[in-house]
Amino acid sequence: MILTINCGSSSLKYKLYPSDLSDVLAQGLIERISAANASCSHEARGQKVRLTPNLLDQLSAFELMVSNRTDPEIGVIASLEAVTGIGHRLVHGGTEFTGSIVVGNDAMERLRKCAWLAPLHNPACIAGIDLARDLIPNAPNVAVFDTAFHQTLPAKAHTYALPYELCTDHGIRRFGFHGISCQFVSRVAAQVLSRPIEDLSMVVCHLGNGVTIDAVQGGRSVDTSLGFGTFSGIPMGTRSGDFDPAIVFHLVKTLGMSIEDVEKMCYTQSGLLGLSGLSNDMREILAAASNGDTRCSLALDSFVYSIRKTIGAYAAAMNGLDVLVFTAGIGENSATIRSRICSRLGVLGIAIDERTNEIAGPELPNITAADASVTTLVIPTDEERMIATEVRTLMSRHQSAA
Amino acid sequence: MILTINCGSSSLKYKLYPSDLSDVLAQGLIERISAANASCSHEARGQKVRLTPNLLDQLSAFELMVSNRTDPEIGVIASLEAVTGIGHRLVHGGTEFTGSIVVGNDAMERLRKCAWLAPLHNPACIAGIDLARDLIPNAPNVAVFDTAFHQTLPAKAHTYALPYELCTDHGIRRFGFHGISCQFVSRVAAQVLSRPIEDLSMVVCHLGNGVTIDAVQGGRSVDTSLGFGTFSGIPMGTRSGDFDPAIVFHLVKTLGMSIEDVEKMCYTQSGLLGLSGLSNDMREILAAASNGDTRCSLALDSFVYSIRKTIGAYAAAMNGLDVLVFTAGIGENSATIRSRICSRLGVLGIAIDERTNEIAGPELPNITAADASVTTLVIPTDEERMIATEVRTLMSRHQSAA
Repeated sequence: MILTINCGSSSLKYKLYPSDLSDVLAQGLIERISAANASCSHEARGQKVRLTPNLLDQLSAFELMVSNRTDPEIGVIASLEAVTGIGHRLVHGGTEFTGSIVVGNDAMERLRKCAWLAPLHNPACIAGIDLARDLIPNAPNVAVFDTAFHQTLPAKAHTYALPYELCTDHGIRRFGFHGISCQFVSRVAAQVLSRPIEDLSMVVCHLGNGVTIDAVQGGRSVDTSLGFGTFSGIPMGTRSGDFDPAIVFHLVKTLGMSIEDVEKMCYTQSGLLGLSGLSNDMREILAAASNGDTRCSLALDSFVYSIRKTIGAYAAAMNGLDVLVFTAGIGENSATIRSRICSRLGVLGIAIDERTNEIAGPELPNITAADASVTTLVIPTDEERMIATEVRTLMSRHQSAA
Repeated sequence: MILTINCGSSSLKYKLYPSDLSDVLAQGLIERISAANASCSHEARGQKVRLTPNLLDQLSAFELMVSNRTDPEIGVIASLEAVTGIGHRLVHGGTEFTGSIVVGNDAMERLRKCAWLAPLHNPACIAGIDLARDLIPNAPNVAVFDTAFHQTLPAKAHTYALPYELCTDHGIRRFGFHGISCQFVSRVAAQVLSRPIEDLSMVVCHLGNGVTIDAVQGGRSVDTSLGFGTFSGIPMGTRSGDFDPAIVFHLVKTLGMSIEDVEKMCYTQSGLLGLSGLSNDMREILAAASNGDTRCSLALDSFVYSIRKTIGAYAAAMNGLDVLVFTAGIGENSATIRSRICSRLGVLGIAIDERTNEIAGPELPNITAADASVTTLVIPTDEERMIATEVRTLMSRHQSAA
């Protein structure tokens, strides 16, 4: 069995798969670790349980996960020996990691060197690997990076036009994120179309709480909308997306804001929330806009417009576009947003069938209109399955090498 | 006769036109005002003179300009009475000025309110209007703004997804620049094609020391690459173009740079110079890249790639593209850059005839390939002529109103 683990700064998400990934045996989410109102939801054998445990720290959370799995009532395995591989999601692998790795002692050192790149997330993930090695010692651990898929970006796409030494000496470049999701849906898209991924130029729209637009050519990421940090590109729930950095200088020098406040503003008070003044939730924005709220309409217009422009930019970057893929919360569930993005992109050969769009889902992913030259798909993302697939691939490679 | 004036912080550029703009009667450039090595070049009646005057201040420069014009040998007019209108180029009109204006006392106040938006340039221009009113009192003064053409941008294109109050209370938005040039060449492009500008979707590539890519739909600017300040968008000679603002936070908080140094870096040490480490001059970059300099190749690749993506973005924004226009120093003179931008944009219907591209010029503006659906033109820009045209238009409107 393969276990996937996604550690946040105060959360732990896990899933257990059989070795052939044909099913999900168990899954759970532990939240608000070390807070008074910590909670755990666990699902297995068609049963859902909700616990309110007392969790001191990440170790207690891991112990809870392990006991959930082996519990005679809600567990699915008799002993931890049945776990043959563990996959960990790492947010940031910098330029150090261009693909998933089996974690030995050397790799732990290399991982620690990348911790500064995602100070909120990487340390929690690294601690999670340590705990997994202690608690489930017989299973190899695989680290899967959300940045690795974008390490194929050519220099013209990942280098900012700043003094070059910032890139070579200080690692300042476009990293991109949501790579696990983009890799997963781009592979599924090629399978859905029964075409070799090597032949396809795709734009993946990962529209969730975070947003990535990704240009995938021949199965490789060639450009991506998130950059050095995680608030650039397209406006998100509370994150700003791209804006002119001259504004930072103006806010600090002329309006007297502190650099810390400006940074916080970009992450937590901008995007849909900043424009609408109402919410960071696209469903609330859509509802209010349709009731005539002009600032919600502006938030919606800006979101859609910025995505339409990025799709155009990437079609130009690849000099071609075969497939447009929508995924993640908004991309999978909002027919309105998909329709607004696609309805005025005929110049690129994009057109969707509005009736199919309304009922699109896992069984009906293809929403392309009859006269379109670009195929538009709705594909549910599944980062855990991608991580489990990476574990399987690396372990079989490992075994055949050994 | 119509006089156009372009005041920099230490320079004064002027041109004199007959009232029907059929010719240029005289033109001059005064540089390094108030420095020891001040210089003036003046051209009229087929003669060029170069003077090395002693110029204490902007007033001395204006007096020199006036005496040059009326000088019996190098001048072209018997008295200043012949000047019937004066056009001034203003860099920044904020949201206050959506078009050119005849400057009365009220307008001077409104102009002074916009000075903060371009602290290096606007005050010199305003002082220039004051001097012109004193020295040439009978001629009306017209202010023409480099930002006004972009005041037609819809909210979704000019609003950043930051807290909305920054826009409403502090004037933080996309302004755009090079509007005088973009307006001029978009009009000429429609004339060259003998088509109504109202019917055309254009992308104007103003590629000079500064760079603007502008989406012009029906003669109106609907999106533009420069933003709140003047270093964003496409990488320029020493200016960075767009980059992730998270880098500013990192440079200040982690690398310990001062915000002033980061700002200076964006304006003076970035762009082609920052990437190449060699030069801010495209001709030198092109020469070195063709001799195998990898950093110059990267600078070139980044410049071209960023323009190609922006053309794609604007084609998507307008859901159509009829005309692509190249103008300004690089746009008018570098067949290589035009070729590199256009050679892989077939997805948008862009293709140029390489042989025509090599010999393009004012007599041969159309470089479109036979099988292209988008017309590509090379049009020399002429900001002074656009300013003089605005003077003529406003004066005739003024006269018919009076």
